[in-house]
Amino acid sequence: MVRIAVLGCGRIGRMHAENIAAHPRAELAGVFDVVDAAASSVAATLNATKFASAAEVFGSPEVDAVLIATSTPTHADFIEEAVAAGKPTLCEKPIDLSLARVAACADAIKGTTVPIMLGFVRRFDKGHSGVRQAIEAGQIGELHQVTITSRDPGMAPDAYIETSGGIFRDMTIHDFDMARFIVGEEFKTVNAVGARLVDPVLMERCDDYDTVTVVLTTASGKQCVISNSRRAVYGYDQRVEAFGSEGMAISENQSDGNTRLYAAAYTDQKAPLLNFFIERYAQAFSSEIDAFVEVVEKGAPVPVGFHDGQKALALAEAAILSVREGRPIALSEVE
Amino acid sequence: MVRIAVLGCGRIGRMHAENIAAHPRAELAGVFDVVDAAASSVAATLNATKFASAAEVFGSPEVDAVLIATSTPTHADFIEEAVAAGKPTLCEKPIDLSLARVAACADAIKGTTVPIMLGFVRRFDKGHSGVRQAIEAGQIGELHQVTITSRDPGMAPDAYIETSGGIFRDMTIHDFDMARFIVGEEFKTVNAVGARLVDPVLMERCDDYDTVTVVLTTASGKQCVISNSRRAVYGYDQRVEAFGSEGMAISENQSDGNTRLYAAAYTDQKAPLLNFFIERYAQAFSSEIDAFVEVVEKGAPVPVGFHDGQKALALAEAAILSVREGRPIALSEVE
Amino acid sequence: MVRIAVLGCGRIGRMHAENIAAHPRAELAGVFDVVDAAASSVAATLNATKFASAAEVFGSPEVDAVLIATSTPTHADFIEEAVAAGKPTLCEKPIDLSLARVAACADAIKGTTVPIMLGFVRRFDKGHSGVRQAIEAGQIGELHQVTITSRDPGMAPDAYIETSGGIFRDMTIHDFDMARFIVGEEFKTVNAVGARLVDPVLMERCDDYDTVTVVLTTASGKQCVISNSRRAVYGYDQRVEAFGSEGMAISENQSDGNTRLYAAAYTDQKAPLLNFFIERYAQAFSSEIDAFVEVVEKGAPVPVGFHDGQKALALAEAAILSVREGRPIALSEVE
Amino acid sequence: MVRIAVLGCGRIGRMHAENIAAHPRAELAGVFDVVDAAASSVAATLNATKFASAAEVFGSPEVDAVLIATSTPTHADFIEEAVAAGKPTLCEKPIDLSLARVAACADAIKGTTVPIMLGFVRRFDKGHSGVRQAIEAGQIGELHQVTITSRDPGMAPDAYIETSGGIFRDMTIHDFDMARFIVGEEFKTVNAVGARLVDPVLMERCDDYDTVTVVLTTASGKQCVISNSRRAVYGYDQRVEAFGSEGMAISENQSDGNTRLYAAAYTDQKAPLLNFFIERYAQAFSSEIDAFVEVVEKGAPVPVGFHDGQKALALAEAAILSVREGRPIALSEVE
Repeated sequence: MVRIAVLGCGRIGRMHAENIAAHPRAELAGVFDVVDAAASSVAATLNATKFASAAEVFGSPEVDAVLIATSTPTHADFIEEAVAAGKPTLCEKPIDLSLARVAACADAIKGTTVPIMLGFVRRFDKGHSGVRQAIEAGQIGELHQVTITSRDPGMAPDAYIETSGGIFRDMTIHDFDMARFIVGEEFKTVNAVGARLVDPVLMERCDDYDTVTVVLTTASGKQCVISNSRRAVYGYDQRVEAFGSEGMAISENQSDGNTRLYAAAYTDQKAPLLNFFIERYAQAFSSEIDAFVEVVEKGAPVPVGFHDGQKALALAEAAILSVREGRPIALSEVE
Repeated sequence: MVRIAVLGCGRIGRMHAENIAAHPRAELAGVFDVVDAAASSVAATLNATKFASAAEVFGSPEVDAVLIATSTPTHADFIEEAVAAGKPTLCEKPIDLSLARVAACADAIKGTTVPIMLGFVRRFDKGHSGVRQAIEAGQIGELHQVTITSRDPGMAPDAYIETSGGIFRDMTIHDFDMARFIVGEEFKTVNAVGARLVDPVLMERCDDYDTVTVVLTTASGKQCVISNSRRAVYGYDQRVEAFGSEGMAISENQSDGNTRLYAAAYTDQKAPLLNFFIERYAQAFSSEIDAFVEVVEKGAPVPVGFHDGQKALALAEAAILSVREGRPIALSEVE
Repeated sequence: MVRIAVLGCGRIGRMHAENIAAHPRAELAGVFDVVDAAASSVAATLNATKFASAAEVFGSPEVDAVLIATSTPTHADFIEEAVAAGKPTLCEKPIDLSLARVAACADAIKGTTVPIMLGFVRRFDKGHSGVRQAIEAGQIGELHQVTITSRDPGMAPDAYIETSGGIFRDMTIHDFDMARFIVGEEFKTVNAVGARLVDPVLMERCDDYDTVTVVLTTASGKQCVISNSRRAVYGYDQRVEAFGSEGMAISENQSDGNTRLYAAAYTDQKAPLLNFFIERYAQAFSSEIDAFVEVVEKGAPVPVGFHDGQKALALAEAAILSVREGRPIALSEVE
Repeated sequence: MVRIAVLGCGRIGRMHAENIAAHPRAELAGVFDVVDAAASSVAATLNATKFASAAEVFGSPEVDAVLIATSTPTHADFIEEAVAAGKPTLCEKPIDLSLARVAACADAIKGTTVPIMLGFVRRFDKGHSGVRQAIEAGQIGELHQVTITSRDPGMAPDAYIETSGGIFRDMTIHDFDMARFIVGEEFKTVNAVGARLVDPVLMERCDDYDTVTVVLTTASGKQCVISNSRRAVYGYDQRVEAFGSEGMAISENQSDGNTRLYAAAYTDQKAPLLNFFIERYAQAFSSEIDAFVEVVEKGAPVPVGFHDGQKALALAEAAILSVREGRPIALSEVE
């Protein structure tokens, strides 16, 4: 059994703790949160140890590996501590909102053999990874165009938006990683437009956007479009489409239960889409823990590494610059 | 050019006349209807000859072939006249409501080489015939089960229902023919249940049913289910499903235009189904004329013959008897 | 925490044990199996107590409730023991292959207040229960016709088939329960046909059928069709369709991952269907445990009771008689 | 009856001629083509007059209106002649490959009351226009993002590509018009990327692209993405998606016949998409003639005018400049 401790007992940390507890080859080594009540609640529900500090977690011989689900500003520090302590770590995205801090962290852990895995959970979604597998299996020939549609079901609370680092670093970052995962090749240019259509007042105040479109291109000419919105009233819209010389692969949205209704005014009506990431990506979050257990237990290669977190953030930086300056940005300008 | 005259200028006769007029290798030789105004209207719109009588049609050297879209009681007589006159004929279903009259007609035209084609239009639908083609191509292996769902969008007028010969002879008859077409083997037993759920008062008065389920079996054990209703509020529901040892083929319903809507309360909503047969089977009616022109022009084999009309009616008789007596009926009991 | 013990550690028992272990408000009180190795394996994997006998389970004060997943012939005995011991019980279907034994069991436990819940897991599937909810919410008006398509992905091992009690008692029984659940009204007549198309030799030897169609009717005229096959090569085909005066509700099949492929020869291609019940009904099995925990913990009404198991079996008996005698059977003939 | 003559008897001219001949309120006044054999063939098949010259067509009192389906370089001249002759005209797109020539033509016909309609046929597709109707009906609230996917089934012949004016003027121009139609607001900026992935040698030679992505924005911040490819092996891919504050409307691709196949290796497989525009937009081409007849017969407002052709071409110019200069282009730079 791999004994995994969870740092951070907010909504996502709690979900990870439950998945670890339910995993046949893992057990929940304990939890920690700066808000003691949050840690206590998870510890009680899952019958797990409550640690007094992060340091105690990293120092414990009862802890084989660590999952970091704390607030973003702590991620880079914890990754460095994990490497120092020799604890394989799965860290929620992003590594940090600052590319400079990420670079410093990269330097600090340079050459380490301690596995650091990044929580780009969507890579583990069967639909999305099915698209990648179709490409690798040659089922669509040479890849030409990728379309990623990614819309949240509703605006996060104002407080979250204000500190999120902006839509590109917080939301699109998942799609940047998905784009890299699907395309399997680095991007060369980033071309982004942004608008304030859902909540113009808040967006104006945060100098942020709620509606963005990004076009990425590779040196070989592959094109990838990302469409984001902070609010899709019909639910959490998550689609990936890959078009190639010999075909197309699509990862479609998923409904909850597959009941369809027909009436005098309509046919084929389904319920709104699964809502929100904890429900939509339930299988992916569970498979992510699987993959992490493989890494810790069997030394499997890290499927999504520190480097991937760094690359996604660089794409976000380039997108921000692109909107600000109204021109395409070469990725080399920000890296 | 094949010169085709149309007998009967009601809704379906008018539609056929238009399809003939629009056909590149056919022309409308003229029309006739006992209601002179109906014939005049079609003749004027399509710039066609108006015949004074059916006899005149059958006698005219300007008429190469005849399409019969008159009321049911005239069909058998006109078929006999067509054979006598040597005019290839496409006759709307059913041949007659009485098996005895059909048998007499069969005797009367026995041995003729004049092509008599029956208007089981659904055989020409690309979706339904696609299912048959999949079977013939071996794509689903040996056929085991067929499911036909066939529901009208709404009750026909009372007057029509009262003289239709009942749901089995009027509506299910299309599905009996479809069942024979898909299965490609004769049925041995008919097992039917009927209910009065849509308009119990009218059904009681007509000793008819508005909601029926029929199970047909062949000597080799193949099973076919037909589900009928006189009223599907969401439109004209027309589906065929064939299940076999190596797969399944489904002919799905068709929407008008393929627009799908997503809103806070639902996703994937489409418009009601195409409504009614003239719209839903527009392609099939047009292809039916194509096939008839092939028969007349090139002596192609008749794709749906008199025999098929007779068989479908026998199945209807057996279904009526099955409901009345509450037991499965061997087809041999009615033939 | 509700402490639930599991009797029977075969494939389904193991799955239930895992679901109990993973349930936030339940814990696995222990397991028992006559095959000691099976029990040991589950006990080790899930870190659970291994009981020495069923009697020990029923006698243990550490056991709040029992889940019975042993072989069918033991079910009725264990239910009686559970009632005697006052342990709320969730028992896999069927209660017994003999209606007489079921009736005796019913007598034996008559008047008990100990909750006995039957494992008709499909009632807990979100898609299927969504259809029932649509009916209850009046979204399709008065119910007229129900179509249940239910096909296994492949033949069970010969040994299983030989002792299963036949397709109606083993496989269709789920659909009989689904039919009762969806219709919400008892059936009056059963009309079944059976064929030997998948494995004629085995079926002949067992006097069984691998391909069956059943038509059920209620006193009010509602019609329900069940189509079963022992082998659908494209996966586990599980669909429910309810048609009513104001609309239709359909529970569609579910694919694994929702990836669709397009190539020169086809479009919209998906993977085969989820395979088999443990995967397809994963959500339902988990929700079933939820429901059982509600029953034990809070005294919630039993959602599927002993009576439902008895009714489903009576429908199976009637279907067997219908095929044997080639006629519709009134349910009153077998009850 | 509206008497319409057709100039140009290539594939598209012939199709228009057939639609006119089949239209209940129109008749084919005659045809003309510089290649006499082409005109003769259509005239013979449709039993129509063959004109000796375009001038004869414009001068004929037997011609109420004209449809121009000749090669692109003749369009502007014929439009000017049509206006001079007072003949309402439906002209295939584009007006000309040169914005300057289009502007000159606009000057030449300035103030005319002769209706000039442009053949942006996709506006008449029920699926695409259904999206626009949903927007107008307020069903998706305020429009935020539009995604147009538009891919040809295969490369046109080299000779066509070489004289087409490039992908933006020849192929994307339809999507530019669709974007304007769906959005209902003028675009302000055009941002395009192009690649040579399908046939790099030919594209290099023609200084053209076979794979392009275009992002359009309006002053109010609406975003529209167009994805084009010269070759989609699975057929003619034509989709439109509109996302707004209260929902989403999608116009899906259409299959031919709606047969779906299930086998051991897959489910839900459909045939390749309808191929090519004459099949896919058959309904739209027919409805386009309808609309033109309304214009000529009843003086209905022109649904797609000269101005729309001019605007679409300006967007194409801006896209070409955007790819060439690697920057977003304000539409004001090219107009």
